[in-house]
Amino acid sequence: MSNLRRVPIGIVGASGYGGVQLVRLLMDHPAVELVYLGGDSSAGKQFAELYPHLADAVTQQIKPVDPEVIAQSCEIVFLSLPNGLACQITPQLLEKGCKVLDLSADYRFKDLATYTSWYNTQRSDQATAQAAVYGLPELYRDRIAEAQLIGCPGCYPTASLLALSPLLKQGLIVPETAIIDAKSGTSGGGRQAKVNLLLAEADNSLGAYNVARHRHTPEIEQICTDLAGHEITVQFTPHLIPMVRGILATVYATLRDPGLVRDDLITIYKAFYRNSPWVKVCEAGTYPQTKWACGSNLCYLGIEVDQRTGRIIVMSAIDNLIKGQAGQAIQCLNVMMGWDETLGLPKFGFYP
Amino acid sequence: MSNLRRVPIGIVGASGYGGVQLVRLLMDHPAVELVYLGGDSSAGKQFAELYPHLADAVTQQIKPVDPEVIAQSCEIVFLSLPNGLACQITPQLLEKGCKVLDLSADYRFKDLATYTSWYNTQRSDQATAQAAVYGLPELYRDRIAEAQLIGCPGCYPTASLLALSPLLKQGLIVPETAIIDAKSGTSGGGRQAKVNLLLAEADNSLGAYNVARHRHTPEIEQICTDLAGHEITVQFTPHLIPMVRGILATVYATLRDPGLVRDDLITIYKAFYRNSPWVKVCEAGTYPQTKWACGSNLCYLGIEVDQRTGRIIVMSAIDNLIKGQAGQAIQCLNVMMGWDETLGLPKFGFYP
Amino acid sequence: MSNLRRVPIGIVGASGYGGVQLVRLLMDHPAVELVYLGGDSSAGKQFAELYPHLADAVTQQIKPVDPEVIAQSCEIVFLSLPNGLACQITPQLLEKGCKVLDLSADYRFKDLATYTSWYNTQRSDQATAQAAVYGLPELYRDRIAEAQLIGCPGCYPTASLLALSPLLKQGLIVPETAIIDAKSGTSGGGRQAKVNLLLAEADNSLGAYNVARHRHTPEIEQICTDLAGHEITVQFTPHLIPMVRGILATVYATLRDPGLVRDDLITIYKAFYRNSPWVKVCEAGTYPQTKWACGSNLCYLGIEVDQRTGRIIVMSAIDNLIKGQAGQAIQCLNVMMGWDETLGLPKFGFYP
Amino acid sequence: MSNLRRVPIGIVGASGYGGVQLVRLLMDHPAVELVYLGGDSSAGKQFAELYPHLADAVTQQIKPVDPEVIAQSCEIVFLSLPNGLACQITPQLLEKGCKVLDLSADYRFKDLATYTSWYNTQRSDQATAQAAVYGLPELYRDRIAEAQLIGCPGCYPTASLLALSPLLKQGLIVPETAIIDAKSGTSGGGRQAKVNLLLAEADNSLGAYNVARHRHTPEIEQICTDLAGHEITVQFTPHLIPMVRGILATVYATLRDPGLVRDDLITIYKAFYRNSPWVKVCEAGTYPQTKWACGSNLCYLGIEVDQRTGRIIVMSAIDNLIKGQAGQAIQCLNVMMGWDETLGLPKFGFYP
Repeated sequence: MSNLRRVPIGIVGASGYGGVQLVRLLMDHPAVELVYLGGDSSAGKQFAELYPHLADAVTQQIKPVDPEVIAQSCEIVFLSLPNGLACQITPQLLEKGCKVLDLSADYRFKDLATYTSWYNTQRSDQATAQAAVYGLPELYRDRIAEAQLIGCPGCYPTASLLALSPLLKQGLIVPETAIIDAKSGTSGGGRQAKVNLLLAEADNSLGAYNVARHRHTPEIEQICTDLAGHEITVQFTPHLIPMVRGILATVYATLRDPGLVRDDLITIYKAFYRNSPWVKVCEAGTYPQTKWACGSNLCYLGIEVDQRTGRIIVMSAIDNLIKGQAGQAIQCLNVMMGWDETLGLPKFGFYP
Repeated sequence: MSNLRRVPIGIVGASGYGGVQLVRLLMDHPAVELVYLGGDSSAGKQFAELYPHLADAVTQQIKPVDPEVIAQSCEIVFLSLPNGLACQITPQLLEKGCKVLDLSADYRFKDLATYTSWYNTQRSDQATAQAAVYGLPELYRDRIAEAQLIGCPGCYPTASLLALSPLLKQGLIVPETAIIDAKSGTSGGGRQAKVNLLLAEADNSLGAYNVARHRHTPEIEQICTDLAGHEITVQFTPHLIPMVRGILATVYATLRDPGLVRDDLITIYKAFYRNSPWVKVCEAGTYPQTKWACGSNLCYLGIEVDQRTGRIIVMSAIDNLIKGQAGQAIQCLNVMMGWDETLGLPKFGFYP
Repeated sequence: MSNLRRVPIGIVGASGYGGVQLVRLLMDHPAVELVYLGGDSSAGKQFAELYPHLADAVTQQIKPVDPEVIAQSCEIVFLSLPNGLACQITPQLLEKGCKVLDLSADYRFKDLATYTSWYNTQRSDQATAQAAVYGLPELYRDRIAEAQLIGCPGCYPTASLLALSPLLKQGLIVPETAIIDAKSGTSGGGRQAKVNLLLAEADNSLGAYNVARHRHTPEIEQICTDLAGHEITVQFTPHLIPMVRGILATVYATLRDPGLVRDDLITIYKAFYRNSPWVKVCEAGTYPQTKWACGSNLCYLGIEVDQRTGRIIVMSAIDNLIKGQAGQAIQCLNVMMGWDETLGLPKFGFYP
Repeated sequence: MSNLRRVPIGIVGASGYGGVQLVRLLMDHPAVELVYLGGDSSAGKQFAELYPHLADAVTQQIKPVDPEVIAQSCEIVFLSLPNGLACQITPQLLEKGCKVLDLSADYRFKDLATYTSWYNTQRSDQATAQAAVYGLPELYRDRIAEAQLIGCPGCYPTASLLALSPLLKQGLIVPETAIIDAKSGTSGGGRQAKVNLLLAEADNSLGAYNVARHRHTPEIEQICTDLAGHEITVQFTPHLIPMVRGILATVYATLRDPGLVRDDLITIYKAFYRNSPWVKVCEAGTYPQTKWACGSNLCYLGIEVDQRTGRIIVMSAIDNLIKGQAGQAIQCLNVMMGWDETLGLPKFGFYP
C-alpha cells in the first residue's frame, strides 16, 4: 500500500448508525480520504449537528444525493440507506466507474425473486444484482477482490454464517437441524424513533420478534445453500436485548458423526479460519461475551459439543455495527483494494 | 378461607433474593403471619440492615437456624438456602409436623443418584426425597395439595416446562428435537458478590454459560420424562442477560404432524392451561416480553409455528424471582392449604 | 369507607405512561370502578393493543374525548394529557360536577402569567386555575380535601419539594443557596418516540438537559415561595439517567444555624412528616436508592450535614411514575374523598 | 520521537480495571514496549485467564511484585494498586532510576497529614510525596515534564478540576459556593466482587454515597487551593449510576461578576484550554453526554450561566477509566518523555 495517495471515498446515508460508524472508522483508515457525506432527510445539515462529539473532527455538511456529483469526487462509495434505495443509484455509480459497497439488503441476493418476496418491493436490476458479490470476506475473499459491487451482509447473517460455515462446508452436520437463536442490542434497529426501541420499553426486558419470518432468514439460507451445495432451510429467531451494541448467535445442529468431540471441532474451526484475521476461535470451555467484540471488527466463536444429545453448539459474538455492518464493509474495501485485510480497523475495544 | 387465624410461617435463608422476595410477598398475603426469619451467616443481624427500605415493615432479627425452635413457632417453613443445606434440616422439621417448601434443588429429584451426580454431593435421605412433590402446580396440583414437603422448581425449569408440557403430554412433538435456549437476568445468580455478576462486567454484554452442563438440565428432563411416559433428553443452554429480573425461554421442537398450524397450537395451549390462573397464552402474533411478567407471578406463553421447517417455537416469559422462585412457592402453599391459588400473589407488575 | 359502592372514574389520555399507570393502580383500588378510558390519537383502539400484557384485565376500548359523555358516566376524571389540553375540557367537566385531577402542568400555577411565559401558550381560564389546588398532600392536605380540581405536581417538583419543605417552612436555610441536582429515568419523557430516549442513545450514558430553563423550575419556586412567605429562586438541573423509572433529587442548601447537626435535622424531618404515610426519613448514614421507591408511592429522604461547609444535603428518591405522577394523583383522590390516604396504593416494590 | 527504540515499561497491578486499561492502551502506543506485568493475588496467572478476549494479544504471565526485578527490565513503571501499596515500593523504584506513574492516591497529596487522616493509614515517605507531581497535564504540564514520580489524579477530581480550574485561576467565582454533584458508572468501583456493585443491585437504580466524606474531596481542595492561592473548601457528592463507564460532574458556583454571560465564559474556557488537546469546550447550548467521552481520553465541558441566580453551571464528561485513570497516566508519560501529548491515545470512542 502506498502512503502517497489517499483514495477519495464518499458515504451516502451518513446520518444513521451505519453512517456514523463508517465516518468514525474511516477517520482512522490510513489509505482513504472522506470527501463526501450524503443524505436525504439530513441533507443541508452539518454532520456535527447530528453527532456533536465529532464536531472538531468532521466539519463537513451533508449533501443531497446526486450520483453524478458523487462519481466526480469519489472512487469508492459506501451506501448506508434503507432497503430499496441503493438499487436506485447503484447502476449509475457503477457505470461511472465507482466501486460500490452497499450496506442495505439490496445486493445481498443473487435471486431477485427471493428479495422481492421477502422485502415486498419491485426491482428490475437483475443483472446488477447478479454481478454483486456477497461481502463476507471469510467466505468470498477471492470474489470480493475482483468485485466492483459488494452487497454487505446483514448483522445477524454475519454472526450466524461465521458459526455455521465450517460445518456446512465440510458436511459435518445434518443441515435441516440447524437452529439459530440470535440476540441483538437495540442499535440494530437504527437511529430511528420507534416506541419499542425506547429505553423505557426495551431496558430491563427481553423478547423475540419476527419469529419465523425475519428477513435475514433467506439471506442466511442463500449462503448456507451455496456452501453445502444443496438447498438448506434454517430456523432463525432474533431477540432484542437490553444493551446498545453486540450480537450473540447461539447455533445448534446435530453432528453427522457422533464420535466427534469438542476438541476435534475446535481444531476444525481453527483450521477453517487460519487465514482470517478477524475470527477468533476460543479455547475449550471458553464462551464468548459480546462485550469482548464490541468496539472491534472481531468475531469470537465458542464451540461446545453435547455428547448426550449429539449436537454441536456454536456461540458467535460480534459488534453488530462493526463486524456486523460498517467494519465488515471496510474489511471488504481492504480486500477489493489489495490492502491488508486488517488495515484501519479496530482490533480490540475497551473492556469493560 | 377464614380471616380469623393467620398461619404462622418461617423463612430459613431470609437474607438472599429468595428470602427477601418471600418476605415481601408474604407481607401482602392475608392468611399467613411471618413469625420467624432465620439465617446462617446473617444470624444476629436485623433484617433491615440488609434491606433498609423495608425497615419500617420488617423489624425482625435474623435468628440462627435451629429446627427445634422453628418447629415450635411455625406451621409452615420456607427454606431458601444454598443447595445441600435444606436436606440437613428438613427431615427434622417434617417429623415435628411442619409443612416444608424448599426453594433449593435438594428435593426436586425423585432419584437421588441424579441429584448427587449433577450436584457433586452425598445424600442419604432417599425416603424423604421420594416423598417430596415437585412444586409446579400447573402440572402437579393434586399431589401438591396432599404433600407435606415441596421441592420447588428451579427458575429455568419453570419457564421451560410450562412451554413444553402441553406438547409432551399430548405427544405433539418429536421429543429429542426439543431445544431450550434460555435467557435470564442476573438476579438469578443471587445476592452474592461474584465478579461475573458485577454491573461493570455483565451490563452491555451477553453470553452463554454452563453450556451442555447446567444443573437445571436433569431437572427439566425428569419432568419431561414423567409427562411423556418415556425417557427424554433435552438441549438446554442458559444465557446471562444485562437486566435484573426475568427469564425468557425460547423453545424449539419439531411437530409430529406438519399439518398443525399456529391457531391449532394456541387452542391446545389455552385448553391445557384453562384452569391455571397464572399462565397466560398470548394471542396469535404476540410474543411475550419478560417485562410483562416482572413483578407478577404470571407466565406468558407465545406460540409460533414455522411451516417452512415444521417446528413449533414457544416463548415463555416469567419473573425469575416470583413465578420462577418465591411466588411459585407461595402458589404451592395456597394449593397445600386449600386456599385460592391466587391468594396474596401479585398479578401485574408496573409497566414500563 | 363503604364497600357497597365503587365510585365511577374515567381516565382521559389512557395510552401514555401516565395513563397505563393510573389504569394499573386503579385496578387494585377497592373504592373505584374504571368506567371510561379516553384518548385522542389512540381513540378507537383496544387498550390491550397498546399494552398486551393487560389484555385479560382491561378489555375496554379507548374512546374519543367528549366531556359531555365523560361527565355522564364518571364522578371522578383523571386527565393525563400533554400540556395545554387539560385546560380545554376541564371547565366543562367541573361545571357538570365532576371532580378533576389533572396530571399535566395546566393547573399547577396560581399565576397564569408564569405558566404562559414558561409554556409558550395562551390561556384565559384564570378563574379555574385560581380554584385549583396543588396536589402535594404532604403540604396541602386540607385544601385538597375540599377541592374539586387538583393540579397534580410534576415528578421533579414532587421529589424536590418533599426535600426542601421542612427547611423552608421552618426557615432553616438561606433560601437563595438552594440547588437541586435532579436525576431521572427516561420514562419521564413519556411513551413518545424521540431519538434521545432510544435505548441505543440513552443507555450507558448520562447528561444534563434544559439547564437553567427547565419548566419545573417555576413550579418548584412557586411552592417554595408559598412555604417561605417570600419570593424564592432556586437552581434546578435535570439529568437523564440510563434507567427506566425513578428520580433522585440531591438538594444542597446552606444552614442558617451552623450548630445544627445531622441528628437534629433528621428529628425535624421526622416530625414534619409524622402524619405523612408516604414519606420515609432514613436513619443517620443511610442514603436512599431510587430502587427502594420503585413500584411504590413512597418518597425516601436521606439527610446529611457537612460541618465543613455548613450545608445540608438532602437526597429524595421516588418512583417518577407513581409518587411522581399517577400514585400521587390517587393519593390526592383518597384525600378528596375522605378515604385513608394509603388506600389502594402500593407500599413496596419488589427488590432488587 | 524516534521509531528506533521502544521504551520498556511495566505495569504493577495488571489484573484490575486500571491494569487492563493500561495494557489495552499501551498495545496501541507506538513508543513503548510492555515487558512486565505484575500482581499480588493474581501472580502466576496468565493475563489471558483474567481477560480471555486478549488471549492472542497478551501472552504474558503475571509475575510477583519485586522492585529489584522490575527495575532491571523497565524504564517506566505504572502502579495500579490499592491505596497504601504504591508507597511501599515506589522509593526503591525511584532509587533505581525508574520513572514511576502511580494511579492510586498515595502520591496525590503534598501534605501527608491530609492523606493519612482521610485514608486512615500511616506513612513516613514525606520526602518522596513532596517530590511527586500531580498528574493533571492541563494544569501542571511543565512540572510533569520534569518529574520522576507522578501521582495520577482520581477520576472524580479529574472531571471536577477541569471544570473548575478556569474559574478559580482567574478568580471568577465565589470559591466557597462551589458544589460538585458527580455521577459515575460502576466500573469506578473496580473489578472487585462487592454486593452493591452487582448488576442486580446497581442496575435500574441510583444513589449518592459517602456524602460529605468522600476521599476525593481533599484531593480536589488541594488543587483548588493551589489554583486560587488561598484555602478552598468544596462540596463534593458522588453518585453511582447504572452504567459501566463514564463520569459526569455537574459543577455549580456563584459568579463574582453577574454581568458575565454564557458566551463570555465559553470564550474564557476555550482560551484556557487552547493548548490542551484532550479538552473540548462545547458550543453554546450543547451539554456533554458521558457517552461522547467513553472510549477516548477526551474531557468534554459544557458551560451554562443562569442569569436568574447568578451561577455558572459547568458539566464535565470523561471516561472514568481513560481520562479519569489509565489514559491520563499515559498522557502524563507522553509529557514526561517529551512526546506528543496525544501519542497513542484514543481520540474518539464508537458512538452509540
